[in-house]
Amino acid sequence: MTKLTLHQTTRSGNCYKIPLTAALVGTKIDKVINYNTLKGETRTEHYLSNINSNGKVPVLQISSDTFMPESNAAMYYIADKSPLIPTDRLLHAQMLQWMFFEQYSHEPAIAVLRFWVAIKGLENCTEDDKNSIPAKRKAGEAALDVMEKHLSAEGGRKWFVGDGVTLADVALFAYTHVAHESMYFDLMDWPNVRDWCERVKGLDGFVSML
Amino acid sequence: MTKLTLHQTTRSGNCYKIPLTAALVGTKIDKVINYNTLKGETRTEHYLSNINSNGKVPVLQISSDTFMPESNAAMYYIADKSPLIPTDRLLHAQMLQWMFFEQYSHEPAIAVLRFWVAIKGLENCTEDDKNSIPAKRKAGEAALDVMEKHLSAEGGRKWFVGDGVTLADVALFAYTHVAHESMYFDLMDWPNVRDWCERVKGLDGFVSML
Repeated sequence: MTKLTLHQTTRSGNCYKIPLTAALVGTKIDKVINYNTLKGETRTEHYLSNINSNGKVPVLQISSDTFMPESNAAMYYIADKSPLIPTDRLLHAQMLQWMFFEQYSHEPAIAVLRFWVAIKGLENCTEDDKNSIPAKRKAGEAALDVMEKHLSAEGGRKWFVGDGVTLADVALFAYTHVAHESMYFDLMDWPNVRDWCERVKGLDGFVSML
Repeated sequence: MTKLTLHQTTRSGNCYKIPLTAALVGTKIDKVINYNTLKGETRTEHYLSNINSNGKVPVLQISSDTFMPESNAAMYYIADKSPLIPTDRLLHAQMLQWMFFEQYSHEPAIAVLRFWVAIKGLENCTEDDKNSIPAKRKAGEAALDVMEKHLSAEGGRKWFVGDGVTLADVALFAYTHVAHESMYFDLMDWPNVRDWCERVKGLDGFVSML
């Protein structure tokens, strides 16, 4: 068995995807190394040279010299050949579709606002950051609208892709279920999304963020 | 055979990924429908209700009622089971890693600056957009630095993943080879990236953007 080490920061939804996926498929993360990103610990010369030249967490370390950044790729590696990844060509591509949606249209709005408000503190943000809050709120609402519409289509869907839970659900759940921590989003406004979050929480093997 | 329709806009790197992938694997796109995003043609009620509720292009239409947004997912659908997608577990996840990197760390900087300068025109951009240019330049340079470092590692890599061209190369090529159109990036500063672009252009079946 490969020994897996997770380089991460606490309270990050992107990092949380890794232990949640591992728990759902019954894989063990052997070691967790925490970094304080607010103190620049993922921007040191050592980190950039050895762990991830892009200076981000999470990174899934698969061997002494194999490091995998990008949360959604690391999830895929862990869940390979598990029921979380459909084998049907269309369903598989639709799963990736929602994972790319998550990284492009969802995370940069919902996760970033939560980071600024609930973790970094608005008082520590730049003026440019603060000026971008209205646009990020709008983008986050739009992302939740897209999710709500999808879940309510065709008489109601339980999961984002096909008939069962996939990595699309896990990826989207990570920051959706804590979206309210920015104070800008209340899932009461997106009832199908809220119900879907509860379904994810009820999955066998589910582990919470903290 | 499935009939494929591409809903797209011209000069978009995300849209270009689809015909480029199709050409490299020898698949035909049966129909192309062009939209003028500057005129809001992907924000009409019809488009949002029927094509993509997220209001973006490209969308790959696979049947009368199956629409796939997200360029990198559509590429995967087209290239399924082709040599552009490695079957090895690690190489496959590394391919996805670079595709997520492209959408999160590369496109929002390099493609957006090109769109503002070369397509929309800076005179039509908001003050907030213009204020974000220095941060986007820095982010774009950082993304190209990550690519340059990767390609120059271990005595030089020809492709981003493994020993042959994969979807990672196609996805990254789309906006890298036109990065200079924003005037903010000159690939002379990233010589291994520049050489890699030439290798992509030399691939059997390669088609150019326009």
